[in-house]
Amino acid sequence: MKDITHEVKIASLGVYLPPTVVSSVELDRQWGLREGTILRLTGVAERRYERSQTSAGMAAKAARAAIDKADMTIADIDAIIGGSAVPQQAIPCMSALLQRELGEVEGSLCFDVNATCLGFLIALRLASLMIRAGQCKHALVYSSEKTSLSLNPKEWESAGLFGDAAVAAVVIRTPPGEPSRIGACRFQTHSSGAHLTELLGGGTLRHPNDPATRPEDNLFHMDGPGIFRLATKHFGHFLESFIGDAAHERSDYEAVVPHQASRRGLSTLTSLYGFSDSQIVSNLHERGNCIAASIPLALAEAVEAGRIRRGHRVLLLGTAAGLTLGALELVF
Amino acid sequence: MKDITHEVKIASLGVYLPPTVVSSVELDRQWGLREGTILRLTGVAERRYERSQTSAGMAAKAARAAIDKADMTIADIDAIIGGSAVPQQAIPCMSALLQRELGEVEGSLCFDVNATCLGFLIALRLASLMIRAGQCKHALVYSSEKTSLSLNPKEWESAGLFGDAAVAAVVIRTPPGEPSRIGACRFQTHSSGAHLTELLGGGTLRHPNDPATRPEDNLFHMDGPGIFRLATKHFGHFLESFIGDAAHERSDYEAVVPHQASRRGLSTLTSLYGFSDSQIVSNLHERGNCIAASIPLALAEAVEAGRIRRGHRVLLLGTAAGLTLGALELVF
Repeated sequence: MKDITHEVKIASLGVYLPPTVVSSVELDRQWGLREGTILRLTGVAERRYERSQTSAGMAAKAARAAIDKADMTIADIDAIIGGSAVPQQAIPCMSALLQRELGEVEGSLCFDVNATCLGFLIALRLASLMIRAGQCKHALVYSSEKTSLSLNPKEWESAGLFGDAAVAAVVIRTPPGEPSRIGACRFQTHSSGAHLTELLGGGTLRHPNDPATRPEDNLFHMDGPGIFRLATKHFGHFLESFIGDAAHERSDYEAVVPHQASRRGLSTLTSLYGFSDSQIVSNLHERGNCIAASIPLALAEAVEAGRIRRGHRVLLLGTAAGLTLGALELVF
Repeated sequence: MKDITHEVKIASLGVYLPPTVVSSVELDRQWGLREGTILRLTGVAERRYERSQTSAGMAAKAARAAIDKADMTIADIDAIIGGSAVPQQAIPCMSALLQRELGEVEGSLCFDVNATCLGFLIALRLASLMIRAGQCKHALVYSSEKTSLSLNPKEWESAGLFGDAAVAAVVIRTPPGEPSRIGACRFQTHSSGAHLTELLGGGTLRHPNDPATRPEDNLFHMDGPGIFRLATKHFGHFLESFIGDAAHERSDYEAVVPHQASRRGLSTLTSLYGFSDSQIVSNLHERGNCIAASIPLALAEAVEAGRIRRGHRVLLLGTAAGLTLGALELVF
């Protein structure tokens, strides 16, 4: 393993948004709610639902966009690291399926990471460690989420939150003289909240062929107030020690890109955790919560809009099922 | 991130084997085959099937055994990295559920890696990179596989191969003066074989609640001869360049621990790839193919039997759905 003598950066980001826009008014109607209910409760006005592409197919569109923007070809990519919450299928891993979708070139290192909504952050961190260690040169890190299949209309407060999207990043060694870098990160899981956010099906616990498996086991369940209580119990201390260890102040960050968990969760960043409104990047209103694709989607859209520029110090953070708290800082 | 100035080692291994032993003669009878068929075709005489524990419950038993052997307590573990092929449930990740099973202590970094049968090797490599980078100190790396729920008796040649097991390793910084280290690794995916080994269900492609999803979509499918052809096309070159880059000879390895994929796959290590019979560690006959738990189970049993000792140079290698080829070398 080589010594660590260089930094690693996000060279480019690519986004795939499904063409089908679903408004909260449509969901109000569909679920028999008074018009305005879903928007009022979730802060989400519209989101995208994928109707035809597979999860790996969505990822391939985001990946091609990112590879093009990096002025690379698919043959340049020597590692594909997935960070999605829900896979396309149990076997093989989605990254192998994505390599297949991209076609042309075989042989890259492929694996998936699962940390639910924080999967992209973990995958990004692992890509940076692997590039530093000489394990790969040009990593494709992505999240692809098709949430719309697993929503439980009976839990409309959470079902109304989610949307579909895929986002990919090309991650490379930082060329000499550039400030860009993927910096420190911290993740901690408080599993007293493991059952607050669950999708029980899809594995060995509630096997799809087991007659005892109920349809609702295959739908997403979230205890919003319970998560909020557990998260606010730990997040302040978590953030304080992360920023302290990084020897930064809150005001050092040009942008804070949170997981778009919920309107209530986002509001704590300014009301409880000392950030200013102008630092926070949010696309919850138009995109909803796209699980692991949420943070990279908000980042990519902020970069596209010029809100985040090269050299900006950016803090990515959020909570995930687990309950996991996570933060990663980078200089874009 | 700190400079890399130290090595990382497996401090201990812990195993959980389900108590229920299922002989190949029982499977012959159950599937209406002539006695001796499954043993003759697969090389597996018996395997374990888990009847009651969850996947995370199995992992917890292996983890406690490993933590005890390392003379540690659960509170010493600051990262839990899963490397299983099939999860317990879609959300949250199995490592959060394992932290919960272990109880007592929260706050460790939890995530899962999926590279099907090579998940343990990738997780071990990532743990070593994270410890070197100062991201964690004492990582628990594990694989827990409950294959017996997803076997298709119509494909008895593959269904007869598989068994259940969980294995965990405590991974730490190597104390000064010890030779132990987790060394180089290489993984490459040839996704022209992505559909040769599949479990189509469990995700967004064949959603469990979709009426079009058929029961056989939720069962394991393997095209053994197709995998064998693709693997032998690439494995020789892969192995040659891995060993060459490591500046080793085949005879430098005191033990080669392959994925216990199949009898035919194992036999190529001596017939095609230049290893000697005395180097190969195999437990296929008694354990079957335990997917991602296979390599660590064979390693743990060889260590327990005194076949692999501290200071031995060991090569872990194999193929996984993807089709992925992988190798990792370590000094135990």
